[in-house]
Amino acid sequence: MTARLQSHQYGKAETRVVRIVRDTPRHEIRDLNVSSALRGDFAPAYLTGDQSAVLPTDTQKNMAFAYAKVHGVESPERFALLLAEHFVHDIAPVSGARVDVQEYAWVRATVDGAEHDHTWIRSGQEVRTASVTVDDGTTTVIAGLKDLTVLKSTGSEFTGFLKDEYTTLQETDDRVLATSLIAQWRYAGTDLDFDATYAKVRAIMLSAFATLHSLALQQTLWHMGTQVIEQVSEVVEVRFAAPNKHHFLQDLRPFGLENPGEVFWAADRPYGLIEAVIVRDGATPADAAWSRSVGAP
Amino acid sequence: MTARLQSHQYGKAETRVVRIVRDTPRHEIRDLNVSSALRGDFAPAYLTGDQSAVLPTDTQKNMAFAYAKVHGVESPERFALLLAEHFVHDIAPVSGARVDVQEYAWVRATVDGAEHDHTWIRSGQEVRTASVTVDDGTTTVIAGLKDLTVLKSTGSEFTGFLKDEYTTLQETDDRVLATSLIAQWRYAGTDLDFDATYAKVRAIMLSAFATLHSLALQQTLWHMGTQVIEQVSEVVEVRFAAPNKHHFLQDLRPFGLENPGEVFWAADRPYGLIEAVIVRDGATPADAAWSRSVGAP
Amino acid sequence: MTARLQSHQYGKAETRVVRIVRDTPRHEIRDLNVSSALRGDFAPAYLTGDQSAVLPTDTQKNMAFAYAKVHGVESPERFALLLAEHFVHDIAPVSGARVDVQEYAWVRATVDGAEHDHTWIRSGQEVRTASVTVDDGTTTVIAGLKDLTVLKSTGSEFTGFLKDEYTTLQETDDRVLATSLIAQWRYAGTDLDFDATYAKVRAIMLSAFATLHSLALQQTLWHMGTQVIEQVSEVVEVRFAAPNKHHFLQDLRPFGLENPGEVFWAADRPYGLIEAVIVRDGATPADAAWSRSVGAP
Amino acid sequence: MTARLQSHQYGKAETRVVRIVRDTPRHEIRDLNVSSALRGDFAPAYLTGDQSAVLPTDTQKNMAFAYAKVHGVESPERFALLLAEHFVHDIAPVSGARVDVQEYAWVRATVDGAEHDHTWIRSGQEVRTASVTVDDGTTTVIAGLKDLTVLKSTGSEFTGFLKDEYTTLQETDDRVLATSLIAQWRYAGTDLDFDATYAKVRAIMLSAFATLHSLALQQTLWHMGTQVIEQVSEVVEVRFAAPNKHHFLQDLRPFGLENPGEVFWAADRPYGLIEAVIVRDGATPADAAWSRSVGAP
Repeated sequence: MTARLQSHQYGKAETRVVRIVRDTPRHEIRDLNVSSALRGDFAPAYLTGDQSAVLPTDTQKNMAFAYAKVHGVESPERFALLLAEHFVHDIAPVSGARVDVQEYAWVRATVDGAEHDHTWIRSGQEVRTASVTVDDGTTTVIAGLKDLTVLKSTGSEFTGFLKDEYTTLQETDDRVLATSLIAQWRYAGTDLDFDATYAKVRAIMLSAFATLHSLALQQTLWHMGTQVIEQVSEVVEVRFAAPNKHHFLQDLRPFGLENPGEVFWAADRPYGLIEAVIVRDGATPADAAWSRSVGAP
Repeated sequence: MTARLQSHQYGKAETRVVRIVRDTPRHEIRDLNVSSALRGDFAPAYLTGDQSAVLPTDTQKNMAFAYAKVHGVESPERFALLLAEHFVHDIAPVSGARVDVQEYAWVRATVDGAEHDHTWIRSGQEVRTASVTVDDGTTTVIAGLKDLTVLKSTGSEFTGFLKDEYTTLQETDDRVLATSLIAQWRYAGTDLDFDATYAKVRAIMLSAFATLHSLALQQTLWHMGTQVIEQVSEVVEVRFAAPNKHHFLQDLRPFGLENPGEVFWAADRPYGLIEAVIVRDGATPADAAWSRSVGAP
Repeated sequence: MTARLQSHQYGKAETRVVRIVRDTPRHEIRDLNVSSALRGDFAPAYLTGDQSAVLPTDTQKNMAFAYAKVHGVESPERFALLLAEHFVHDIAPVSGARVDVQEYAWVRATVDGAEHDHTWIRSGQEVRTASVTVDDGTTTVIAGLKDLTVLKSTGSEFTGFLKDEYTTLQETDDRVLATSLIAQWRYAGTDLDFDATYAKVRAIMLSAFATLHSLALQQTLWHMGTQVIEQVSEVVEVRFAAPNKHHFLQDLRPFGLENPGEVFWAADRPYGLIEAVIVRDGATPADAAWSRSVGAP
Repeated sequence: MTARLQSHQYGKAETRVVRIVRDTPRHEIRDLNVSSALRGDFAPAYLTGDQSAVLPTDTQKNMAFAYAKVHGVESPERFALLLAEHFVHDIAPVSGARVDVQEYAWVRATVDGAEHDHTWIRSGQEVRTASVTVDDGTTTVIAGLKDLTVLKSTGSEFTGFLKDEYTTLQETDDRVLATSLIAQWRYAGTDLDFDATYAKVRAIMLSAFATLHSLALQQTLWHMGTQVIEQVSEVVEVRFAAPNKHHFLQDLRPFGLENPGEVFWAADRPYGLIEAVIVRDGATPADAAWSRSVGAP
């Protein structure tokens, strides 16, 4: 045999768990999409088809529902921590686990000027993410968000860039800057108020995006990341992926019209994609927690 | 020849027009997806390939951008009215036109407790729709929304239904009721404040959804529709399509756990689909404006 | 009360039924997405919440699975016919029904040069559609397909079109013509070999698309439709919706390169949308079977 | 300053390049989605907004089109190689590059029993992928595919698995096994016939999937991977991500019907996700080429 099984993991992806708290007439709701992946002594399942160490993915799904009942969902990070630690500590063949949670936000409907007790509206396209990895005795919590679409209608330029024989782009000192942001940030520990810290990080990023006069999306990301690192002591690393959702100034001169930054075509593809990894000085790396497999959902 | 060209239309679909108003430092934004379809003397283009009466779809796209500059976007309905009337009145071969506009909402970012002048966040998955049809001398305006996802965590039951030999569903006197609502409503005229009326209709529908103790999604739709008809005199017809986004109570008994309406599985497919057409007594029908072709986007 | 319930229907959408025939080691597979909508005496469900005439959508789902077992899936049209007639004839409050079926195609995997008995590969993005409406004593079968993406790399031009002050498009006598076709055709009766006729119609349309030198997509659609009407006697009506998937010739002159129809940018949006309804002379109309509600999936 | 820019990259994503070869009346077509990401001396763009070393993403897009003209598209791997090497060798600030290419397949339309010269049908949902990384003087080529949906209607079981207090799944000795496969494989070098090798790897994987009596999807993946390693000497590593697309046997007993593996419900979510990394003994690792950033498209 010339082939070797180098690594493997398996789990249940996208279990849609909705948890209602109805202890009082004023309900609460948490709406999650839970994925788990287990690592451990599962090589025989691959090599010979022996399933004796394999806890079915269906069981992992059942656990997600049962934990939502027993422990509730204090936050997506806490929920992922509980599940991941259960997998590693309570299932003998499991040596490592990763639990990814997406949370969809709901806001209360307003009726006669007051928030309703049990009626909800899905708010935003934005998805909150939490990823907990327990491996080699280390627990890493990465919080984040994706699909946060933000736009500045001025306060952004793009000039002074490198030009070669394939460059046709014109410089501009006033453009629309828009992105559908993916941001993830790693916490130093696990003992924090995840909901409050999430809200704080998000507010800092939005404020930094709004107030910096942007010379490039790169500069904006760096500014957002450093503001988070400086203002939130629990955060040791921030990673961004920001598609530059191009809004092209439409040429209206053929119709005898000026267009001083008023009418834009919002293009689909292609798009720029700007990425950055910003770390707190002296932070311990956590590469394993950041690694993504070829089929990451 | 045994075949006959019975009807036809052509146009440009999904032109993504973003209009910024920057007359003062406090900008405004309207973000539209514009589709137009023209009817008229275009049979030769089909029968012999003669394009002499065919205004290119590319030109229709150009018009959308030019009109956004010249007229601005007071509301999606008004913008669609202007374009549709231009097509019919100014392009000789055009006898009828339909303009569909989707609008995506943005809210101002909050920085240091204040709304920012030129930074925006995409709000909600919900899409506002406007459809204007000009044909046979008649102009019809249909406003609407889609992808408004709402959920009640109590106040809904489903009992007393018909049972046959294929029925296995259990009755329930307390369930989660959720839908991703499509609602469209037709106005009697064109001389109204479209933005204000849209907001009013939406608020009435949400309030009706929230406050009715629901015996069925059918009943909820009827209640929402009649409230709109009764409270908004400009509306003469309301059409609903409401997918019943099933939230199944997860069975936790195998794990020794009760589940009194707390943990649900949010299922994808299949889903119930409930539809209703509610009209104001005495309203003139407008079937042509409601008709959708086989490839409606 | 000033509001009136004008019409309504309800049903189960997108039940994913997979039927395996395993009577011999050489299996067969049919993979369906089934949606049903019922009309009848259901007004009380809307007006007062009385469900006593309402057969749950869950029951409709159960029927789809049970019918797949008992009757098999001879073709999507036959399966839809059986279900629709059952609803109307066997469920007392039901006066009309529409059953829409999408079928996904699978081809046998090839192993050592031979087709495998029970291993399948999903073939194509193309979806076959069937829609059966039973109402007012009339049964109408509409067959079709969608997402059939076809492209001609020459043999298409677009010249001689109408020009106005908003027209900037250049004429071209050789362009890429591509569309993601939606086609639906209505049969005169129900007593035919649906699978064989489907294959015949599809082949005729593709041949017509390929061989006509196209002066416009409109002309191509008319040619495809008339060929079907003339060659397939069972078809009395064809409806097309053809998005013109623009392939723009990329301007390479800034880099000192010619581009004689070799390098194109495949754009997403906007796109032209060309539609046509072609009928056999003397055919009885069937508007009700073609009508689509505001929330048609 | 307590924050540090640890790493960064930027580029143009999803440039849709279609290349027609029309040297003879029998055309050829290659349909690509090209994404590039550059690494190098771009820190000033982040830290101070200085763009003087930044080649615009728009220029990267232009290059993709120009290279399609000048070099053609021999294969997606070769095309990605040419682009990646150009970025690293010819753009001074660039020290590393990654080019990802997706290819969509087209087959010739058949007209009167013969393949047509210039009419094409999009074939399959399956996407071919190529990823070339040039960094630190090393060039790595990873070929692959995604969305290859395969299904076995027998020849698969799942028994003997681990059970705990959350396990409710029943064992089965005959089930439907289906997956939408993601497979990527790394080549030892760059001097090979990429199209022929791709076809060979794909055929081996399909044959292995079909012929192994599967005790688990894990075993099937291992079998597929080892067959590739053993039969294709150029491949040094294979990575799989295989969602277990569950087909649940529908319970028809309430209707008095048996269901011996004939009628299934094809579920959407959740799904199992099985992953494996299989390497040739003695192969040099190439972790950098496999790493994916948080916003990988």
